[in-house]
Amino acid sequence: MSQIGYVETQRVVLFTEDDPLRLRGGDTLGPVEVAYETYGELSPERDNAIFVCHALTGDAHAAGLHLGAKKRGWWDNLIGRGKAIDTDRFFVISANLLGGCRGTTGPQSINPATGAPYGLDFPMIEMADLVTVHRRLVEHLGIDRLYAAVGGSLGGMQVLQWVIDAPGQIERAVLAAASSQLTAENIAFSAVAREAIMSDPDFHEGRYAEHGVVPARGLKVARMMAHITYVSDQSLAHKFGRRRIGAAPTFGVDYEVESYLHHQGDSFLQRFDALSYLYLSRLLDYFDPFAEPANLARLREAVTAFRVLSFDSDWRFDTRQSERMVAVLRQCGLQVEFDEIASPHGHDSFLLEPPGYHEAIAAFLDRPTSDVRR
Amino acid sequence: MSQIGYVETQRVVLFTEDDPLRLRGGDTLGPVEVAYETYGELSPERDNAIFVCHALTGDAHAAGLHLGAKKRGWWDNLIGRGKAIDTDRFFVISANLLGGCRGTTGPQSINPATGAPYGLDFPMIEMADLVTVHRRLVEHLGIDRLYAAVGGSLGGMQVLQWVIDAPGQIERAVLAAASSQLTAENIAFSAVAREAIMSDPDFHEGRYAEHGVVPARGLKVARMMAHITYVSDQSLAHKFGRRRIGAAPTFGVDYEVESYLHHQGDSFLQRFDALSYLYLSRLLDYFDPFAEPANLARLREAVTAFRVLSFDSDWRFDTRQSERMVAVLRQCGLQVEFDEIASPHGHDSFLLEPPGYHEAIAAFLDRPTSDVRR
Repeated sequence: MSQIGYVETQRVVLFTEDDPLRLRGGDTLGPVEVAYETYGELSPERDNAIFVCHALTGDAHAAGLHLGAKKRGWWDNLIGRGKAIDTDRFFVISANLLGGCRGTTGPQSINPATGAPYGLDFPMIEMADLVTVHRRLVEHLGIDRLYAAVGGSLGGMQVLQWVIDAPGQIERAVLAAASSQLTAENIAFSAVAREAIMSDPDFHEGRYAEHGVVPARGLKVARMMAHITYVSDQSLAHKFGRRRIGAAPTFGVDYEVESYLHHQGDSFLQRFDALSYLYLSRLLDYFDPFAEPANLARLREAVTAFRVLSFDSDWRFDTRQSERMVAVLRQCGLQVEFDEIASPHGHDSFLLEPPGYHEAIAAFLDRPTSDVRR
Repeated sequence: MSQIGYVETQRVVLFTEDDPLRLRGGDTLGPVEVAYETYGELSPERDNAIFVCHALTGDAHAAGLHLGAKKRGWWDNLIGRGKAIDTDRFFVISANLLGGCRGTTGPQSINPATGAPYGLDFPMIEMADLVTVHRRLVEHLGIDRLYAAVGGSLGGMQVLQWVIDAPGQIERAVLAAASSQLTAENIAFSAVAREAIMSDPDFHEGRYAEHGVVPARGLKVARMMAHITYVSDQSLAHKFGRRRIGAAPTFGVDYEVESYLHHQGDSFLQRFDALSYLYLSRLLDYFDPFAEPANLARLREAVTAFRVLSFDSDWRFDTRQSERMVAVLRQCGLQVEFDEIASPHGHDSFLLEPPGYHEAIAAFLDRPTSDVRR
């Protein structure tokens, strides 16, 4: 196994004002630029492409190093020569989401109608809109069919939507720590995060960029809270326990776990935008593809084999949510392999390497095509 | 069974500037006024008093109605004629905590040294200080021994501290949904709540009262988040599911569960103070009585029988935390009955009436004294 070396993020305009993106909700959006990276080589037959879908706050930089950077891509442990997603065999595509803030058009992009950032004038988007944009990227790269699509958390949900929207395009789908439907508790946590952001006086109704500020206090609180839900009580107990930093009680940072959370909140401010958080978290609330009979009919036409993976300590998107997806997919006649992986790291397990996880993905991707078709 | 009628909150000054409260941390505090209520009649032998200890954001008004009010006391389902804490038999005392904001001296009280509210000049307090104040109240009422002390959540922890500080005073102790030690995850949630409060621009370093404002945005976010941790995913799913209020996505209140959380946050602002939240939540972080060998020695002298109750859906203070308390108390030679009660309502179950819960308390309180002594 070896790591990928230096990579660069590419950018391409896939929709224009004259050829805009038509959103499911009825609005149009243009131009739409997409930031993406690729690893490995596309085969002459163009049959070895794997699309990697990132989570809520991820980005296109899934593997390798950017020149001058120290931190490798967010799924570098999975993608590389000899790794589960083997770049000696596969051509891997990773793209930032529509509505994001890491190179793909989102609410901080310039609205051509005003010359200023969209702010809250950015249209409400749905999971299907993210898929539409990434399908256009695949088309732009000259690829018709995907050997596989692989996603964790929101990324897994995007893969599910992609199979629904293009039942003939994806041969193998990996859904890790995902769900077909957020629970009331999931929605509740997102509601608190949005309240923290939008009640920050620096939010300025979403026009904070024009005021030269960001709603940093609210976004930090939102991230600190969300981070607790991405890990587990046992992982926090194991990593930090009740270890203190100082001796006497203060209202500052007295416990190691507090220091860790503050660090998570502060570093998040360096890489993520509050409006993207609003749009993408709201999109997740509304994601509920199995509620529409037409989607189930499309799934019955799909050529996709599924590998669903949950993690036993993930309480944000717990195993029951994966089991629900598995049941419906099987009712649609699809081939689905499912495992709950033992891991103490909560929802974030999908970014880590608990025993059996990468092996399960590698084995699934190794299957010849004839095995995975119905 | 019948409900208690109209009650009034009493106030009494228990410590003065000349006879101040000596805090465990070394500071002194005076005057200290305490708000309390009583229900039922004290027996001529003064042997039927039960002290009820409230949770983090509770108050002295545990049962009955205040004149002109519609909402009954927070533990009215437990306390009354013929109820588990039977006011035909028992004299029940309920008092607001030191550091609170519901009538007992706290950070919004006037600092005699400045003539202004203490703010963050209020000293850091410990669980033992809450006990010292309530013991003085019991003394003021002419009571030497308590037939029982009953508390849920922080209230249960206060009861445990009380047994340690006065091993001969409490005959029966009921600890519901409590813990002897917060987990790293518990501390993490409290850290986020404090960050939301203290980063609100209206916090003004704790001097917000002098600015004529309150850090309402931060306190609301803190409460919304905390409320999720007081209930359970199944109770939220049962009550609200994914039911929507409007049709089209907005960044307002789209789901019923969001409306509920906003209501919880807004109504909390009417009754609770941000500084009290800081002091009492920090006090909980530091509560860890079994870490001190001297406390274990005191428990070995206690005359108290314990009834410990946890709830199977309580993930904020889960059954493992109760089991830990039970194990240590038994190691100290104490008689402890323990049950995990089935209830879908999460941590807040201790305020409700899941089957078997009130019955367990009633049966425990019915025991003759000879049965509960070692």
